[in-house]
Amino acid sequence: MTTGVGFDLEQLVATNSSAAFNRMAGFEVVAAGDGHAEIRMTWRDDFTQYAGHLHAGMIAALLDTACGFAAATESGAVTASHFSMNCLRPAIGRHFIAKGTTVRAGRRQVFAKAELFAESEQGDLSLVATGETLLIPTGGA
Amino acid sequence: MTTGVGFDLEQLVATNSSAAFNRMAGFEVVAAGDGHAEIRMTWRDDFTQYAGHLHAGMIAALLDTACGFAAATESGAVTASHFSMNCLRPAIGRHFIAKGTTVRAGRRQVFAKAELFAESEQGDLSLVATGETLLIPTGGA
Amino acid sequence: MTTGVGFDLEQLVATNSSAAFNRMAGFEVVAAGDGHAEIRMTWRDDFTQYAGHLHAGMIAALLDTACGFAAATESGAVTASHFSMNCLRPAIGRHFIAKGTTVRAGRRQVFAKAELFAESEQGDLSLVATGETLLIPTGGA
Amino acid sequence: MTTGVGFDLEQLVATNSSAAFNRMAGFEVVAAGDGHAEIRMTWRDDFTQYAGHLHAGMIAALLDTACGFAAATESGAVTASHFSMNCLRPAIGRHFIAKGTTVRAGRRQVFAKAELFAESEQGDLSLVATGETLLIPTGGA
Repeated sequence: MTTGVGFDLEQLVATNSSAAFNRMAGFEVVAAGDGHAEIRMTWRDDFTQYAGHLHAGMIAALLDTACGFAAATESGAVTASHFSMNCLRPAIGRHFIAKGTTVRAGRRQVFAKAELFAESEQGDLSLVATGETLLIPTGGA
Repeated sequence: MTTGVGFDLEQLVATNSSAAFNRMAGFEVVAAGDGHAEIRMTWRDDFTQYAGHLHAGMIAALLDTACGFAAATESGAVTASHFSMNCLRPAIGRHFIAKGTTVRAGRRQVFAKAELFAESEQGDLSLVATGETLLIPTGGA
Repeated sequence: MTTGVGFDLEQLVATNSSAAFNRMAGFEVVAAGDGHAEIRMTWRDDFTQYAGHLHAGMIAALLDTACGFAAATESGAVTASHFSMNCLRPAIGRHFIAKGTTVRAGRRQVFAKAELFAESEQGDLSLVATGETLLIPTGGA
Repeated sequence: MTTGVGFDLEQLVATNSSAAFNRMAGFEVVAAGDGHAEIRMTWRDDFTQYAGHLHAGMIAALLDTACGFAAATESGAVTASHFSMNCLRPAIGRHFIAKGTTVRAGRRQVFAKAELFAESEQGDLSLVATGETLLIPTGGA
């Protein structure tokens, strides 16, 4: 149950499940609330680019989803109009964790950012990419 | 056979086939040469976001691949460090065509841009997204 | 006189004159209409960075203004929320010409792009930077 | 005196003074070291856009300079190839403070980000814009 316009964890888990791509990719919503959201994905060999690292499209999908879900905790349903990312290091790991944060939630626009961490076999996290999304609230809650 | 550092269509078809994600997603290299490259993908229901449009991660994958392959026609092997995209309209269609163009191929950096078109059942093309990539030549040819 | 929401050349010349920075920098609106706008500036020695090229802030100002004025020809008063640019070559020249184009003018968001050309003593133009702006219509006309 | 490739505060103050634009705009290097840099500027009425807020070009100049100086503390002389910014709130204040941070300093590329704060008459700081720069080390120290 939610009292405001923002989505809670339960609603974001449902939103995540309603997206066919997210189910196909095995995205999990690990945490969400107060302008933050965390997405997790397990490594898959069929998600790699030519050099064997995670494909840029999957890096983008994780960062964009973390931004969108972080924004949704404050603004409800949103849609992305601009997305950018920096690929800092080769994206290789057993798991990937994308942490999104709302920078500013306005009435007409929401700015969010995210960091993507690769988790090694030993459980160490390293920052492999950063991203940003500019979103538009679409009015649903 | 190639005479310079740039990749020709045959080499890019091979590069595309060597990437597990590209095979999984069914990317085809339709054309490549002289700073340009064109990628094609057929609609798949399991690539959608919650509203039933093509997922942002797939839009990014198509734009980024078209940029990278356009850059490779001039600079050979490259790796992306920055990517951005604008989502102009809902990405819905029978097919998607991403057209990449090299803006400037320097020795240390390559700037490329791309447009993503959705093809309707009737064969009409509409521009649904634009993207940009900044790439680093990695020396292989 | 304007019949729609968009600004014509006369209105953009007035907008340009109403901005103190644009007057200080000597921006001129050379052309505007139908989703396009062209801004011109003469070289000034006090606008350079440490290496003697045009400062990134001035490159951004020219690109952003060209984007904003191009958007205003279709959408009237707008305000920028996101801006990005690629610096392709050292920005040196007798004059600078920024050409803006609207990519998509929606009700809630306008996407515009621009190219910045440096004009040599001989009158040759070279592309030194490209930029993009995401704008919000602010309702005035 | 510096022992490595990175610039110290004294060198960045000198770099700042060597840039005509920075002198014209009254940029001051307040702090620099260990991947961070802070730039300060006092409000000027001739730096405003049509609505009386700080012009986007000046916002870009402050963010880009803070990014570049933060990068220089680790990598020495650098030049920006890509810059982006988000304009979160109207930029109005008695002073502006831009705080830059290096995200990753590689051999061939440096990623840096910055935040721009407006300082009110009462001394309160509010975040008005964020930015990112991708830089190339140019070899000088």
